[in-house]
Amino acid sequence: MEAEFLAWLRGRLPAVKPPIDIGVGDDAAVIACAADSRIAVTTDMLSDGVDFRLGEVDPRRVGRKALAVNLSDLAAMAAQPIATFVSLLLPRSGGTALARELYEGLLPLAEEFSAPVVGGDTNAWDGPLAISVTALGRAGPQGVFVRSGARPGDAILVTGEFGGSILAHQFDFTPRVREALWLREHAKVHAAMDVSDGLTLDLSRLCVESGSGAELELSRIPISSHARRLVAVEQLSLSPLQHALNDGEDFELLLAVDAADAARLVADQPLESLFGVRLTQIGRVINERGLWGIDAAGTRSPLEPGGFQHRFD
Amino acid sequence: MEAEFLAWLRGRLPAVKPPIDIGVGDDAAVIACAADSRIAVTTDMLSDGVDFRLGEVDPRRVGRKALAVNLSDLAAMAAQPIATFVSLLLPRSGGTALARELYEGLLPLAEEFSAPVVGGDTNAWDGPLAISVTALGRAGPQGVFVRSGARPGDAILVTGEFGGSILAHQFDFTPRVREALWLREHAKVHAAMDVSDGLTLDLSRLCVESGSGAELELSRIPISSHARRLVAVEQLSLSPLQHALNDGEDFELLLAVDAADAARLVADQPLESLFGVRLTQIGRVINERGLWGIDAAGTRSPLEPGGFQHRFD
Repeated sequence: MEAEFLAWLRGRLPAVKPPIDIGVGDDAAVIACAADSRIAVTTDMLSDGVDFRLGEVDPRRVGRKALAVNLSDLAAMAAQPIATFVSLLLPRSGGTALARELYEGLLPLAEEFSAPVVGGDTNAWDGPLAISVTALGRAGPQGVFVRSGARPGDAILVTGEFGGSILAHQFDFTPRVREALWLREHAKVHAAMDVSDGLTLDLSRLCVESGSGAELELSRIPISSHARRLVAVEQLSLSPLQHALNDGEDFELLLAVDAADAARLVADQPLESLFGVRLTQIGRVINERGLWGIDAAGTRSPLEPGGFQHRFD
Repeated sequence: MEAEFLAWLRGRLPAVKPPIDIGVGDDAAVIACAADSRIAVTTDMLSDGVDFRLGEVDPRRVGRKALAVNLSDLAAMAAQPIATFVSLLLPRSGGTALARELYEGLLPLAEEFSAPVVGGDTNAWDGPLAISVTALGRAGPQGVFVRSGARPGDAILVTGEFGGSILAHQFDFTPRVREALWLREHAKVHAAMDVSDGLTLDLSRLCVESGSGAELELSRIPISSHARRLVAVEQLSLSPLQHALNDGEDFELLLAVDAADAARLVADQPLESLFGVRLTQIGRVINERGLWGIDAAGTRSPLEPGGFQHRFD
């Protein structure tokens, strides 16, 4: 199981020491290059059959996504992208055409976010497609956003809307890099991450790293129209809210922000005029461990974290 | 075909500009973090069935190799390792045990070379094992070794011996990091790379990047005892010299060095007393393009570059 393996691995790794500022466990590692210069480094691998199905999606969208998920991790750290590395494991037959399409999807996003591809590794084998991207970003003089700094009383803010990403958003999302860089300059952000595996699962991780818990006001969760559409399409028993709480791949920012700053951000919605992205307060950080949901009637009950985890034995 | 695809890709990438010093085409990219601080970044992916066969080799040796090939790329740039990232694509069944064994092989090498694992991505799928490692290294104040700086008249030096790596050396080699860092301080190294795909193929690449050619004295090529053993085992028509010239995965350094410095290095063999590694002059850089072999009788003839390339269509 992924979580158990990662716990084992963290126990086996040596203590973090200079020039490493942050090691395994956040959205990116942070390395001190010079006294006043820190870079964040993140890496994510996507594979056919797990993160996409080549027969069902244009390879250009796959290439774009492989870069976008890494840029989203840099956004989670409030790091400005500077360079990316792309490694491909291509099926032998049709590998060249596929590789070109992947790059045709990826390169415009790299240009948009000033994250040029400067290296990588191109391989062929008899298996399905896998793509591993590594992205480097520059931290600001204020440092990076981390998962571990949430304080009781902080407001929990999110960008955008949640749920139903499987219908399209999982490939077409915009990594919240610009939003994070703006917030780093204009608000006291105590903790942050990007929501890749599911809102409640990722919030539970942020809480564990911060040694705190969280209360969510369920009526305030911004539910994507995709989540509502998915309910209609699937005809399963899940509600749009359940999709919003537990679907993966929203790639929105999840932030623990000083309460006064958060009130101002929610009232003024500065990211809406700048980037067309709304901020919503969905709850608050509390001392008590665990996740708690408060429904429209004011009833408070434990909220089981749900989302995507890699399963292996 | 790999070479054609890479040529296409280099044409599609934007021109390198600050903070990128070196982009696609060398053993690592180089990024300026601050005025006096540059880091080299390299990434290599290994996969089951191409770079190893899981049923035939201890997974610990596979994990070690996945890191070692990246450290060898940092050595090629004369960069001091600072951090590594490990991404795994695991078969679902037995994935946890396999992941632990890979790390058990990799972590001692990471410690030996002060290259701690500080991030990565652990995934599971229905396909075979793939490992992608990214390594970061610090450039010295003199800058990095590059492929493109060889000058006519330079001596071509190599560390160690060549050929037959398939018998064991491909997994058990020591990346020449210490040797490169020593040479960066003590000799005028005009160009360098590590030999991963075959001595002649890699030398031909160094020559292309430098706009020059090379003459090899075939009787001086240091032939590994593994190459001789392989000839005995295989009973094929290849000679030990042919193995030394064209086998891949020697992971030795290939250097174009100022002729006077090279003469001194070969006479004094400083790396032998320090690290147990011999330096051999195998030829010289010439103005005329292409590779040329000079046999023991003094006959000069064109040398066809041979080695490993990923094949896909």
